[in-house]
Amino acid sequence: MTPDTDASLPQGNGPLAGFVILDLTRVLSGPYCTMILQDLGATVLKVEQPEVGDDSRQFLPFEGDRSAYFALANRGKKSIALDLKAPKDRRVFEALLAKADVLVENFRPGVMEKLGYDWEAIRARNGRLVFASISGFGQSGPYRKKPAYDLVVQAMSGMMSLTGHPGQPPARVGTSLGDLAAGVFAALGIQSALLQRSTTGKGARVDISMLECQMALLENAISRFTLTGTSPGPTGAAHPGSAPFDAFRAQDGYLVITAGTDKLFKTFCGVIDRSDLLEDPRFADRASRVANNAALKEMIEDKLAAAPVAEWLSRLDAASIPAARVNSIKDMVNDPQVKARGAIAPLDGSQLKLACTPVLVDAETYPDRLPAAPELDEHHAEILAFAGL
Amino acid sequence: MTPDTDASLPQGNGPLAGFVILDLTRVLSGPYCTMILQDLGATVLKVEQPEVGDDSRQFLPFEGDRSAYFALANRGKKSIALDLKAPKDRRVFEALLAKADVLVENFRPGVMEKLGYDWEAIRARNGRLVFASISGFGQSGPYRKKPAYDLVVQAMSGMMSLTGHPGQPPARVGTSLGDLAAGVFAALGIQSALLQRSTTGKGARVDISMLECQMALLENAISRFTLTGTSPGPTGAAHPGSAPFDAFRAQDGYLVITAGTDKLFKTFCGVIDRSDLLEDPRFADRASRVANNAALKEMIEDKLAAAPVAEWLSRLDAASIPAARVNSIKDMVNDPQVKARGAIAPLDGSQLKLACTPVLVDAETYPDRLPAAPELDEHHAEILAFAGL
Repeated sequence: MTPDTDASLPQGNGPLAGFVILDLTRVLSGPYCTMILQDLGATVLKVEQPEVGDDSRQFLPFEGDRSAYFALANRGKKSIALDLKAPKDRRVFEALLAKADVLVENFRPGVMEKLGYDWEAIRARNGRLVFASISGFGQSGPYRKKPAYDLVVQAMSGMMSLTGHPGQPPARVGTSLGDLAAGVFAALGIQSALLQRSTTGKGARVDISMLECQMALLENAISRFTLTGTSPGPTGAAHPGSAPFDAFRAQDGYLVITAGTDKLFKTFCGVIDRSDLLEDPRFADRASRVANNAALKEMIEDKLAAAPVAEWLSRLDAASIPAARVNSIKDMVNDPQVKARGAIAPLDGSQLKLACTPVLVDAETYPDRLPAAPELDEHHAEILAFAGL
Repeated sequence: MTPDTDASLPQGNGPLAGFVILDLTRVLSGPYCTMILQDLGATVLKVEQPEVGDDSRQFLPFEGDRSAYFALANRGKKSIALDLKAPKDRRVFEALLAKADVLVENFRPGVMEKLGYDWEAIRARNGRLVFASISGFGQSGPYRKKPAYDLVVQAMSGMMSLTGHPGQPPARVGTSLGDLAAGVFAALGIQSALLQRSTTGKGARVDISMLECQMALLENAISRFTLTGTSPGPTGAAHPGSAPFDAFRAQDGYLVITAGTDKLFKTFCGVIDRSDLLEDPRFADRASRVANNAALKEMIEDKLAAAPVAEWLSRLDAASIPAARVNSIKDMVNDPQVKARGAIAPLDGSQLKLACTPVLVDAETYPDRLPAAPELDEHHAEILAFAGL
């Protein structure tokens, strides 16, 4: 969108085609943010440390001599190796700064300042630039310079206190949601600043805290605490305010069943041939079913033990009760809906398949293939040409 | 941004100030999407069913006679009750359609078509409108008309297969991440379509599947499966590719410690006075520590039992090893960083406090207060005036 940017870089496909993202990020939260922007059509110029590159190029597992971990979040990006402490490379970086729409980084707060690229200096070079930073705790406050990893923000936010089974050791969300959520909210913040720029003509500073992104995903845990003074705890697979709404064991595995409303509960009792439960005052309404969930669950599992998951799913589906097998990754990859939508696509030059960014704009299916991640410094010449050097 | 929209509605503050969102959504995924847009400055016109309104107005817990659950995701929105099957109310809705920037709905696919508001009909009324739909499985594919709740997509996506402890019954992510993630990605998709419109002048159709949003948050589980043929399972609080990186029990509770790199592991062994572990070939590098994680964890917990969490955190902090208490919601709400940033704000006219949307644009702190959620039909006259009726 910046004048002169269309000279030398091929444009992506999608709603963000034409936007140029200058990307200093490493490992996961930042690369996931710019992966989303890339998937939506933006051109992402990944600036990496000479010789070593992004740390996650070393992360397991490997496919041949390349990290499959790195390939995931860096698909389709263009790589240039620059030493931001060397005057020659700084001139390249500054030429790119002047032309980009967005700069993203996830260093510890203070690093950009030390490099001479604080917000004032950056704004002076390109008043239309959106400068987004992702950090563990944000750019202000007493913890701003503390190191953080996914697990730290999952623990500190209270997310872990809600996850897992009561009486068991704490469990994390089984993926690095601390990083991934920060990446999505950063992409959201960047887009909002670009929309603001479309009116004001001015760039903006965007500050994303991994901790705060976890807090924003606690649903009503904070409001329940402020209302009652009591911290909610983990509930396994059960919903704290609805029952039956849980994972249940059938003959050959687990399925989830969500029949929390009075209407669905009535239908469900018919499906498991326990319509007598409707006369039981312990299960008369949503609140009493929540209070007596343990007894209810036992009665339900007694019935479910008589048939395999597939048979129960077929009966529940016929009764329009939302239910599902607790799928393994393999089950999910082979699911007919997943295949029909094409939401998992093969990666170019690899045997890997990856989930697409789950945003369809004017389309019914996802791309047939995802573009490969770059080798370190692969696009040096192309990016120099774009910079006008 | 549409001509004439500034006549009668007060504008919000933030990067999306001036954008008008016509909101047909109910319960959680859709309301969370439009809550984010509201927090970022957009004006959200919530269209509700006459007399009953959004189902979540009945959800527990209540504060006085109002649902605290509803208050969370509907703060700052303007409500109008319209019966989309009644000709008089349809005229109001169509006048709003002609003026809005965005239409969002989360009915089951097919409902909008039955109402006569399919994409072709909507586009004919307002060619600049972005029309976003959130559903369990998306607008296409064999499951498109199936009902879905949060737990269903957490189960079907494989997210639950990665969460909880090995050998235990399945656990969900302890909040309704199935809904919340769909809400965030929907907001992202809407913004991308608005950015596209700023170039093309044309609206777009945005299709968000709750299932695909969970799949996009599986980190590298899908690529690991495609590489090895084996579905990954749950690992409690441990990271599948890094150790020590887990929750550990100390004298008075749990803390997480992330010291997976060789350098951090060496420092950590010093902190717990077990530098002898550095000589043990089982712990010589990242891969061997992951393979021997159970033995390593036992040795670490033997040491940690000697002191309370606070003391270990102080020692780990001094050594720059990322670590944290497994906070309860109460611990988190009272954390100095959370207080300094103001990321939890009081809700007007209520004792509730809520997490702000975690995006700071040109700011160091969040709003002092969040605006109250509307009563059903509270803004009828104001919205009619905006519609020009």
